[in-house]
Amino acid sequence: MAIGVKAVYVSYVAHVLAVVGAILVLVWCVSFRGGLAWEATNKSLIFNNHPVLMFIGFIVIGGQAIMSYKSLPLKKAEKKLIHLVLHAIALALGIIGIYTAFKFHNESNIANLYSLHSWLGIGVISLYGIQWLFGFVVFFYPGGAPQLRRESLPWHVLFGISVYILAVGTAALGYLEKLTFLESSGVAKYGSEAFLVNFTAIVTILYGSFVIFTILSKAPPEDEHDHGYSAIEHE
Amino acid sequence: MAIGVKAVYVSYVAHVLAVVGAILVLVWCVSFRGGLAWEATNKSLIFNNHPVLMFIGFIVIGGQAIMSYKSLPLKKAEKKLIHLVLHAIALALGIIGIYTAFKFHNESNIANLYSLHSWLGIGVISLYGIQWLFGFVVFFYPGGAPQLRRESLPWHVLFGISVYILAVGTAALGYLEKLTFLESSGVAKYGSEAFLVNFTAIVTILYGSFVIFTILSKAPPEDEHDHGYSAIEHE
Repeated sequence: MAIGVKAVYVSYVAHVLAVVGAILVLVWCVSFRGGLAWEATNKSLIFNNHPVLMFIGFIVIGGQAIMSYKSLPLKKAEKKLIHLVLHAIALALGIIGIYTAFKFHNESNIANLYSLHSWLGIGVISLYGIQWLFGFVVFFYPGGAPQLRRESLPWHVLFGISVYILAVGTAALGYLEKLTFLESSGVAKYGSEAFLVNFTAIVTILYGSFVIFTILSKAPPEDEHDHGYSAIEHE
Repeated sequence: MAIGVKAVYVSYVAHVLAVVGAILVLVWCVSFRGGLAWEATNKSLIFNNHPVLMFIGFIVIGGQAIMSYKSLPLKKAEKKLIHLVLHAIALALGIIGIYTAFKFHNESNIANLYSLHSWLGIGVISLYGIQWLFGFVVFFYPGGAPQLRRESLPWHVLFGISVYILAVGTAALGYLEKLTFLESSGVAKYGSEAFLVNFTAIVTILYGSFVIFTILSKAPPEDEHDHGYSAIEHE
């Protein structure tokens, strides 16, 4: 498509951003917010699982799943299996991450599902699950007829990219929402925690952008005549 | 590219969403928030210009500018002029819209530029301005050499799409941030205003999505061999 750079080089930038983002989100939740716990009297520790699981589990691993199918110099069947398994892990960790937000709300008597972040989050995880199931049934097992695979592949790619962009946008909303709550309870607007959270959000957006740029770049040579993401070019 | 539907049909969906979104944002700012004013003792009326100008002025007109180049059945020179002028209007209204947020903050003693929404907003308007200037100089007046135009067109398209998606994401952050402030000052979390703002955000995201889907759809027949957005397919 658009970018005449090898996909694997673009993916290296994404990998670096993933590591930086993971460090930032852990520093925030552990050093600034007191750490992670599944059961605790300080309910904030239960909440802290949410950004960690959603960023490292859902956004980072989901992005690796997307890039793996484009950038790895492997056979199609192997790439498909890696793509499928990584997306399953991302989906599972995303569901657990959403559960921790509900658990925190319920144990702290905070209302559920009133904010744009929560609405879009439920939408994203549902669409992600539908996309995974569709991909599994049509492209893996039992597998659709050749015509169905060929015709549905560009839609699988377009739908997948759209849901992933929406996921990254929902993450940005989450950082802003949590930081706004913290600032209304006294966290300094120009303090180090505020800057840390904003920079984590920007690294998250940059990671998501480089995931998309990777799949708009050049596939490995052995793959050029394959029906990979390049299927999006055929009408 | 991906979608085998005529671009003009996809753009109709975007137009309907633009009208619905414009009505929703006006109902919110006029009926729920008391209306718009440039000078007022009730400083909230100054703020109310911000969502109206950013959604109707920047997001809607910017989206029309993007779609016009793809979907209109006109000659290339005419489409280019429309594309250029609509983007200039969007940029100007966006700058005025951002100014109203600063004006509201300054007259109400509220801090500027601490939130993710404001950081990304400044980033988006700057990138939008750079993109417009680059497009003007290279593709309009004085115009670059044929090789420069040909090689920079896919980057113009990719950069433009990226900045527009970022603009829509920044709008979503704005709705969430303002509604979170309102809810912390007593607006009901499940009340009609909260639902109105969340639905306006969702319509904004859907409009942005259909703007992008329009340029991924089939160009008018007279344009198929033209170097339009289809340039993104050539490496």
